[in-house]
Amino acid sequence: MSNTSPGYAITVRVEAPSNAGVTSGLVAAVGRAGGALTALDVVESHADRIVVDITCDATDAEHAETIAAALAEVDAVSVRKVSDRTFLMHLGGKLEVTSKVPLRHRDDLSRAYTPGVARICRAIAENPEDVRRLTIKRNTVAVVTDGSAVLGLGDIGPAAALPVMEGKAALFKQFAGVDAWPVCLDARDPDKIVEIVRSLATVYGGINLEDIAAPRCFEIERRLRAELDIPVFHDDQHGTAIVVLAALANALRVVGKKKADVRVVVSGVGAAGYAIIRLLRAQGVRDIVACDRRGVVHPGRDGLEPARRWIAEHTNPPGHDGTLAEALVGADVFIGVSAPNLLTGDDIAAMADDAIVFALANPDPEVDPFAAREHAAVVATGRSDFPNQINNVLAFPGFFRGMLDAGTSEITEAVLIAAADAIADSVEPGELGAGYIVPSVFDGTVAPAVARAVREAATASGAS
Amino acid sequence: MSNTSPGYAITVRVEAPSNAGVTSGLVAAVGRAGGALTALDVVESHADRIVVDITCDATDAEHAETIAAALAEVDAVSVRKVSDRTFLMHLGGKLEVTSKVPLRHRDDLSRAYTPGVARICRAIAENPEDVRRLTIKRNTVAVVTDGSAVLGLGDIGPAAALPVMEGKAALFKQFAGVDAWPVCLDARDPDKIVEIVRSLATVYGGINLEDIAAPRCFEIERRLRAELDIPVFHDDQHGTAIVVLAALANALRVVGKKKADVRVVVSGVGAAGYAIIRLLRAQGVRDIVACDRRGVVHPGRDGLEPARRWIAEHTNPPGHDGTLAEALVGADVFIGVSAPNLLTGDDIAAMADDAIVFALANPDPEVDPFAAREHAAVVATGRSDFPNQINNVLAFPGFFRGMLDAGTSEITEAVLIAAADAIADSVEPGELGAGYIVPSVFDGTVAPAVARAVREAATASGAS
Repeated sequence: MSNTSPGYAITVRVEAPSNAGVTSGLVAAVGRAGGALTALDVVESHADRIVVDITCDATDAEHAETIAAALAEVDAVSVRKVSDRTFLMHLGGKLEVTSKVPLRHRDDLSRAYTPGVARICRAIAENPEDVRRLTIKRNTVAVVTDGSAVLGLGDIGPAAALPVMEGKAALFKQFAGVDAWPVCLDARDPDKIVEIVRSLATVYGGINLEDIAAPRCFEIERRLRAELDIPVFHDDQHGTAIVVLAALANALRVVGKKKADVRVVVSGVGAAGYAIIRLLRAQGVRDIVACDRRGVVHPGRDGLEPARRWIAEHTNPPGHDGTLAEALVGADVFIGVSAPNLLTGDDIAAMADDAIVFALANPDPEVDPFAAREHAAVVATGRSDFPNQINNVLAFPGFFRGMLDAGTSEITEAVLIAAADAIADSVEPGELGAGYIVPSVFDGTVAPAVARAVREAATASGAS
Repeated sequence: MSNTSPGYAITVRVEAPSNAGVTSGLVAAVGRAGGALTALDVVESHADRIVVDITCDATDAEHAETIAAALAEVDAVSVRKVSDRTFLMHLGGKLEVTSKVPLRHRDDLSRAYTPGVARICRAIAENPEDVRRLTIKRNTVAVVTDGSAVLGLGDIGPAAALPVMEGKAALFKQFAGVDAWPVCLDARDPDKIVEIVRSLATVYGGINLEDIAAPRCFEIERRLRAELDIPVFHDDQHGTAIVVLAALANALRVVGKKKADVRVVVSGVGAAGYAIIRLLRAQGVRDIVACDRRGVVHPGRDGLEPARRWIAEHTNPPGHDGTLAEALVGADVFIGVSAPNLLTGDDIAAMADDAIVFALANPDPEVDPFAAREHAAVVATGRSDFPNQINNVLAFPGFFRGMLDAGTSEITEAVLIAAADAIADSVEPGELGAGYIVPSVFDGTVAPAVARAVREAATASGAS
């Protein structure tokens, strides 16, 4: 599946003769090379020549070069420059830190800095809980990674992970007004990571763990939750689980089945799979079969680390054995958070009637969604070029907005479920359908609805 | 010396009868109570009454209460509310994190986040030095403290220190466009602090150590400089030293003396004193006498930790002993970075003719500057309500701007001297005088001049 993507957008600046018809020649060259033209701008116009910026999407970096070469081959045209829009956007990073208070003159400085600020320091020294009221702790979340499990790239380390963390912070601010800051750690030992995060937590009202490989992520989250008095949330676990549960609730409404009645097969028992399974059970799903690379996870297997052992002991009551494809026969729901190209259309055809398929492996799903759609009633992926995109951005901004506003730290299953329900309920009954089971990420009502639900659930949990 | 200050500004909202003369009664009440009125706004006007916001500066928190009480006592006037402008300004903190790239629609997301961002991650994974070009590391400095030596407040810990670090970050951005982020650590052991900062340094192009007590600050800076490939700069040491040296260069021009000929007495051998003495020597000052609480620092003293031992061995060639006042007799320059009220006007009178006095203890200087001015040719303090304010903000923003732009990490004495010269030279010959030896902090030419000088000096140092 090779579509052009704005992620591979280039702008080619060419010089061409100024005669009628030259621009259509340029457009045709882009089309022949398979590029998707998005803009054409004449930036200079002279008697004998024009300079034109041609912007188009390519399928990958190699294709971008092919398109530029095709333009160079057009008669009497020369290429001046090729700019990669994605790289240009990243020069110097994507975030900045700005002051919320004026600093125009001495009086401003006397309040924001010395001597006025000393009074604020003294107030916090006398009443430590005032740090949540009088500093950025009120509104700020740390996005913490060690770069060991980044997107589909795997273990690339903290420096290479930084652009993703910057993007995450930008999304936190854009969607829920939460200030977020990247903390990319050159450390791997869980003891070290826990100690470092504990030491720097003063500044933050919440910790978002990101792209830390299983199984270390489970221990790190558990220990930080025990040591800190602010919420700790591994988005790859719980953000994914929240959105999956919201999508499942709506998909079951579409096909007219109930959670307690369906068989769910989960492929992948890393961070996302583990959290999804826990939340499915919390919501009353009884019949779950989990699979990893070796097939169905069951207690008879050896060498299971703690998370996988928990899964083995709390799923698959009949004690099935075998492969993923075998487990899928007659199943109602498939949730894939694993690897590409594990299944075919035939495997989906073997599922129950009105099957639900969430193939979320990134960038290529467990099964071709077009093939799946021929046999399943509802299909979802993580891709933006297919309906029903399961995207964590529906969850994490509103989630932390709610936790920061509640001022509590405990994240119970009730809080996660409240978030999932808020997302599911953002899809109006009139909108709900096989091709629309989750709201669009750009639906501005979602984050506030999630925030409100989380705040109320967290406050209730904190009070009990 | 108790002046009113904008750091203690309050706004008192009162309800008063709407007759002629009532507002002058309110103004008079503020004056009788010793407040400095800065604004009077009628916010509501009715037939029988008006509501007025009276804004004024007080000398301290207690005085603010006195003023509010005085207003309440005015006939037929009732106080509705007293708002503290400094506290209001600090609600929710003084910084925010904002995106520099648009996130309006899916194409934007595809470039700033998945899938486009993966290409940037891969580029950095393949060429690690590209992290300086493609992320916030290009422009961002960490402001790192453990809260052990904050302003005049001492050891108040990381949470109470956060408002100062937020203010520092705001100043970095305002004066030099440098993005800065507070890192307040709940840690004291130098090994721990060094390890934590090393682990999180990936994100940053520089480390500004702040408000970390001597002598731990010396070891921490030294070890971080050895371990990191980005500049590490303890502002309390070097920022102070840079501005002091700039002021001294100009003060010597005013009185017509040379660095090599003068006797300088330094009171205070903590972070600032140590760095000042090192830079004085680097600039050719030979005759330096350093004093601490016990008097003159000389090799005969016992129990000197490494920094103080270095000072003992590299100052005071004649081997003076005795008190600070004794050392000052016949001295040309006094530089105080110690404690309040150590000296009187008589001590200054005993100095050489055309004496230079920098009394920088905060908030109250080593000697009353008015008394000093009766005997010395040039007097400077750290206070904003006296001429010649020695303020580190003249140095640190431009300093890091220059280091970030140079892309080197070594901070040699040549780099510090280049910064000091740029500050001194920002005072035009026609402006230079006993009352104007350093530029105003709001002189917009200073930070760029410092940045340029630092960038050139750092690049030259890096190339040799």
